[in-house]
Amino acid sequence: MCVLGLGLIGGSIMRATAAAGREVFGYNRSVEGAHGAQAEGFDASTDLNKTLARAADTEALIVLAVPMPALPTMLAHISESARNCPLTDVTSVKSAVLDEVNAAGLLARFVGGHPMTGTAHSGWAAGHGGLFNRAPWVISVDDHVDATVWSMVMALALECGAVVVPAKSDEHDAAAAAISHLPHLLAEALAVTAAEVPLAFALAAGSFRDATRVAGTGPDLVRAMCEANAGQLLPAADRVIDLLSHARDSLANHGSVADLVDEGHAARTRYESFPRSDIVTVVIGAPDWRDQLAAAGRAGGVIRSALPSLDSPR
Amino acid sequence: MCVLGLGLIGGSIMRATAAAGREVFGYNRSVEGAHGAQAEGFDASTDLNKTLARAADTEALIVLAVPMPALPTMLAHISESARNCPLTDVTSVKSAVLDEVNAAGLLARFVGGHPMTGTAHSGWAAGHGGLFNRAPWVISVDDHVDATVWSMVMALALECGAVVVPAKSDEHDAAAAAISHLPHLLAEALAVTAAEVPLAFALAAGSFRDATRVAGTGPDLVRAMCEANAGQLLPAADRVIDLLSHARDSLANHGSVADLVDEGHAARTRYESFPRSDIVTVVIGAPDWRDQLAAAGRAGGVIRSALPSLDSPR
Repeated sequence: MCVLGLGLIGGSIMRATAAAGREVFGYNRSVEGAHGAQAEGFDASTDLNKTLARAADTEALIVLAVPMPALPTMLAHISESARNCPLTDVTSVKSAVLDEVNAAGLLARFVGGHPMTGTAHSGWAAGHGGLFNRAPWVISVDDHVDATVWSMVMALALECGAVVVPAKSDEHDAAAAAISHLPHLLAEALAVTAAEVPLAFALAAGSFRDATRVAGTGPDLVRAMCEANAGQLLPAADRVIDLLSHARDSLANHGSVADLVDEGHAARTRYESFPRSDIVTVVIGAPDWRDQLAAAGRAGGVIRSALPSLDSPR
Repeated sequence: MCVLGLGLIGGSIMRATAAAGREVFGYNRSVEGAHGAQAEGFDASTDLNKTLARAADTEALIVLAVPMPALPTMLAHISESARNCPLTDVTSVKSAVLDEVNAAGLLARFVGGHPMTGTAHSGWAAGHGGLFNRAPWVISVDDHVDATVWSMVMALALECGAVVVPAKSDEHDAAAAAISHLPHLLAEALAVTAAEVPLAFALAAGSFRDATRVAGTGPDLVRAMCEANAGQLLPAADRVIDLLSHARDSLANHGSVADLVDEGHAARTRYESFPRSDIVTVVIGAPDWRDQLAAAGRAGGVIRSALPSLDSPR
């Protein structure tokens, strides 16, 4: 396996898969990251051409673990030197990556992924082999995905200790907008609003601290996530603005916020009792397998041990 | 001292002040709460007339610890039987209480209070003497407040282990709208929005759970807080809707959420470094003492040990 980019996520994947006994090598642009990996006995290089040639020779699964802005250049290199390798990524916005991969002519062997974990820190030194333990790792089941590559990516995620959530790229992005990107915008707006009220910071305690915690995230990171997912974030933002505006009008005109509060409490209660289950019956490559997996993921299903595939021994 | 209402807050005040050596008796409407207190050796009654007569005889400080809807009836009884007693309350919206107290003709000896603490549970059994330990306890410094009563309420809060934040009622309510009531509305709106996105609950984890936690609060309680503070909540809601609408338009038209994210991060950073200090130099009853305390509270000052007063030995 070949990991391109040995930062927090890529570096942790290298550690976790090596610990699981897999042969893994990697590339990192900065000497610092590559040396960090080498110093811990890993097979890391700063020579992209050599690394891709080796991946092509061994038909290695390539894991794209570079930041979103570096993706187009990296895909161009892969397209030139290792276009037949199976390919996955670990980026938090899936449709934008899919477009780039398609533009580079690499769609046929690509299966997108998104391990939903992280820390406040970045770089090789911040990573560790346990980073993905029990974390959800979304793997795309878009219409184009190849069953063999899908099984490889599933095996990678499971080897890292993650639980696999199968999802269409656009559904993943809509969910990420609602549960991650929109909460960032709300926290920023709340922090700005409270800062303008003289006594607010003096009285603020636990619940305000929690509600604005993610406004402490670096602005560049928040912008990168939100702006790359504008297509899904816009309708979510519109919906929340609409709900707040209705509540505001109801409070002004009828002295009541009952509608929003009742609906919100009911939604939160449904979330708390959202059923989780294991996906065990789907056969990868069987008719409709992608839609079956997407439906199972939507219903709260996760893959905790490798599903069989049509072309593998059962 | 006389505590009217022996629920979570009133019951905890009774325990904390008794532990500090104060003579304290109380009233509770339900037999259950009164018996709970009696069983633990406290002086509790379900007879309001007798309790108020005793308060009047001993000129006891009366602590109103009943829910907001029970306030007008209770104030009418006090007005009739114990109108000369010093009076405070523990309710989360101060201007609305002030109006009720004024309407009952009890303003002269009233100093509003708001201990900013609580648990998910209610009733006598949920309380304990340590509930207020290090918690902020807002005490109103409105223009009408009497220095002697103010000192009594300060002593009560300090006896309970709280730190005192002096504030005008309207400023307290504006701050509460921004740091507590608005976050409730945002959490409700976020929960509703996410519930409508098929995959959202399946992928939701820590940050969504934190961001919607307060949507788990009982709808009646949330409505009571928000609706009693409509005058201050409306401008806060308008401001947050305005900020979100601008961010939404900027994302749609320019692909950028930079303005909101930069401002939000800066505001949150200011909150983290908000200076806290001890108020030690103000003399209660001296010229301008109310405005001095309000300004000190606004600047992050708290009272940790009793301030001197003009009419007390120094």
